[in-house]
Amino acid sequence: MSSVIPVLLSGGSGTRLWPVSRKSFPKQFAPLTGDQSLFQASALRLSGPRYAPPLVLTNADFRFIVTEQLADAGITPAGILIEPAGRNTAPAILAAALHVARENPDALLLVAPSDHVVPDADAFGRAVEQGIAPALAGRIVTFGIEPTRPETGYGYLECEGAGGISPTPLRRFVEKPDAATAETMLKAGNFLWNAGIFLFTARSMIEAFRAHAPEFLAPVEAALDDATRDLGFLRLAPQPWQTLPDLSIDYAVMEKAANLSVVRFAEHWSDLGGWDAIWREAQSDRPAWRGVVADARSTAIDCDDVLLRSDDEDMEVVGIGLKNMMVVATRDAVLVADMDRAQDVRQAVTALKSRGARQAESFRRDHRPWGWFETLVMGERFQVKRIVVHPGAALSLQSHVHRAEHWIVVSGTARVTVDDKVSLVTENQSIYVPLGAVHRMENPGKVPMVLIEVQTGVYLGEDDIIRYDDVYARS
Amino acid sequence: MSSVIPVLLSGGSGTRLWPVSRKSFPKQFAPLTGDQSLFQASALRLSGPRYAPPLVLTNADFRFIVTEQLADAGITPAGILIEPAGRNTAPAILAAALHVARENPDALLLVAPSDHVVPDADAFGRAVEQGIAPALAGRIVTFGIEPTRPETGYGYLECEGAGGISPTPLRRFVEKPDAATAETMLKAGNFLWNAGIFLFTARSMIEAFRAHAPEFLAPVEAALDDATRDLGFLRLAPQPWQTLPDLSIDYAVMEKAANLSVVRFAEHWSDLGGWDAIWREAQSDRPAWRGVVADARSTAIDCDDVLLRSDDEDMEVVGIGLKNMMVVATRDAVLVADMDRAQDVRQAVTALKSRGARQAESFRRDHRPWGWFETLVMGERFQVKRIVVHPGAALSLQSHVHRAEHWIVVSGTARVTVDDKVSLVTENQSIYVPLGAVHRMENPGKVPMVLIEVQTGVYLGEDDIIRYDDVYARS
Repeated sequence: MSSVIPVLLSGGSGTRLWPVSRKSFPKQFAPLTGDQSLFQASALRLSGPRYAPPLVLTNADFRFIVTEQLADAGITPAGILIEPAGRNTAPAILAAALHVARENPDALLLVAPSDHVVPDADAFGRAVEQGIAPALAGRIVTFGIEPTRPETGYGYLECEGAGGISPTPLRRFVEKPDAATAETMLKAGNFLWNAGIFLFTARSMIEAFRAHAPEFLAPVEAALDDATRDLGFLRLAPQPWQTLPDLSIDYAVMEKAANLSVVRFAEHWSDLGGWDAIWREAQSDRPAWRGVVADARSTAIDCDDVLLRSDDEDMEVVGIGLKNMMVVATRDAVLVADMDRAQDVRQAVTALKSRGARQAESFRRDHRPWGWFETLVMGERFQVKRIVVHPGAALSLQSHVHRAEHWIVVSGTARVTVDDKVSLVTENQSIYVPLGAVHRMENPGKVPMVLIEVQTGVYLGEDDIIRYDDVYARS
Repeated sequence: MSSVIPVLLSGGSGTRLWPVSRKSFPKQFAPLTGDQSLFQASALRLSGPRYAPPLVLTNADFRFIVTEQLADAGITPAGILIEPAGRNTAPAILAAALHVARENPDALLLVAPSDHVVPDADAFGRAVEQGIAPALAGRIVTFGIEPTRPETGYGYLECEGAGGISPTPLRRFVEKPDAATAETMLKAGNFLWNAGIFLFTARSMIEAFRAHAPEFLAPVEAALDDATRDLGFLRLAPQPWQTLPDLSIDYAVMEKAANLSVVRFAEHWSDLGGWDAIWREAQSDRPAWRGVVADARSTAIDCDDVLLRSDDEDMEVVGIGLKNMMVVATRDAVLVADMDRAQDVRQAVTALKSRGARQAESFRRDHRPWGWFETLVMGERFQVKRIVVHPGAALSLQSHVHRAEHWIVVSGTARVTVDDKVSLVTENQSIYVPLGAVHRMENPGKVPMVLIEVQTGVYLGEDDIIRYDDVYARS
């Protein structure tokens, strides 16, 4: 049996799950429904004997999150392609197909979003196996989820013939329906939810683009030809990629192609497309009393059909007399919305962005290739940060014009360079970095190094930095 | 004209305004509606030529908050009486009357809660003036607020004669009415809201207790006889005070006394008795579009009749599609409730208390006589605190068994004792306090001293402290 190369699309920004999902660290990387991130769960679901190592498509901002999360999950990818700019799924999928075709045009690719929930990985794997024969025969295979409710938030796939046959040719794509149409389709039995998962050979997909969206071929070929390798990433060239239209694979190719088949998938699936889906998902695990889904830090008093969620370990959430509502609290932002307005959460992001609130797109915690940091307090002329450095990682060699820094190691051991002096600083030791000194912090150890940094100075912006040397090739 | 001694009652715990008001720092001390706290605003309203310096009644937990806030407001009190235990208003008011009577039984006392809003202080002062003659003639004068709506949340005062005459004898107290009764009383014109504000001579109040609640006299006398002076506070003796019943002045005396008069007050007044009152209050300042009251960190999208409030400078609040709701977010707790459930917010406090959540009663910021501190982050074996010390203040001389401390001064100057060494540590300097060292931190300067403390150790509880010496007489 041919093995299948999973292609994980993970460049999205998930604004409908704000404030837990933000552009700087979107939902696919967050542990939304368990200990693993959705991205990790997706990568693990598509690993094992059925699959070759995955190809990941992401953007420059997420590249270190991707490598860190794959390493955590114990997965070695076949490659990580960096899109120079988000242009929706059409160029990304074509880039994957062209990239793979250079080695083996008959290789099978399974394109999947990295933010869906599919609890039964083995059942999904058997569905993939059903698709292999038609895919090898030149069909593009799409996976249709058997609907369990008259959902108006998804597109549908209309199958040829009576319901139940799988794989079966696809008759047509159906746009998100109104409630009545959704009801009719649910009863008809030959309409499935379009999950945006596709199985095909590299050759078939390239041919499909050639037939239906040929304008993508040359620019994406060029992006691959001029790609640069950088710390294990394959960075697609920005030109002419950036001139490509923002287009989904459905619009560009699938809705026009005649060689589509559908594999029916009847097990549980969710796209976690909004907080209402998260709420529904939690109830599918365990029916909730009066429809209340509340975590250990949330208290519902006389509430019905509510999601109460606290994503900060020191944040209590209390709802009193609420009906059909969602409350999501993080360290720095709270969303309260009518459950029926779940799709409008992106309006919150737009509104916050328009008035310059950081919370629209980024978190207090900032992920970097070497680890992460967060501001604990920002004062008049001081700032306190917690800095966590991965084992073996190093920050850039740098200096500041406006600030001095006190470093206190509270876990692990740091190797610290200050001008021409190098010292080991371990738990409960501190070191002072005077204003202007050229300095670097490294973790030479085997466990994460945690350090408290107290900055003092009149200007404490992240841009007061002169970098002399950086192992992560940042300018 | 006789001057009036304001008696500020400020021992309450304000649970209906949780999470901004908590037992450890209740609403009267919080800047709920402006820069000043309600307590400060109340003290200032009752200062000036009409009034003598105030007498404050509070409890031991709030004593340093009271002195700090009075000092900030530039007010020197006549005395601060510490109640050994909260026993409602009856014993507190009797203690004030007996205390004042020892110097001058004919002195006029104006008892007022310290958590009400009365924007027009001069109008209120004129109302007080109207009450002076009857009070000197032996009447107990109560102040009735002219009702502006059929409120069911307040008690009422029924005045003798037709509406509009002031002062006028009181016919009777009316318990919180149902909606229909409230409507009838609003139309009748001779019913006023009971604001819990009273003017009387010390002698009259003592006589009223002797006539209607004589069982209070001996225990309260004893509490005063055995009171101790401590750093300027008069601490009432705990026995037999603690055996007193928990009773309001209304129940103990007012509802039985026949010598009551009412002064009508027609200007704006609010008891800020719940978040619905805060919401209403904000609209009385400036009518809100679609009833939305939102602060600078809150965003309302398609909301009607909502209060959206963020009490943390780094917290964004977004409401989508909400109607008749209140959302109050702080650094560590979020309340979301139907506006009609404002009185049930105390249930939130009860629920959190029953499962041991700190947020039920206390804040991250902990006020102490020397200033305050807050935990910025609590880690596996470390904790980072921000500590602010008032000019001239000093922490106790202490040592710890389980932790070492790194101190970095980020504002002002500290005088630091570590064992037998005393040093001045100023901005951008640090000092290390080894485990077991006897140490003290003082602010010898003229500006607040701000210090970042990084603790390391296996146990970091506040109770790992041996105190050798404390200027605030804490054990």
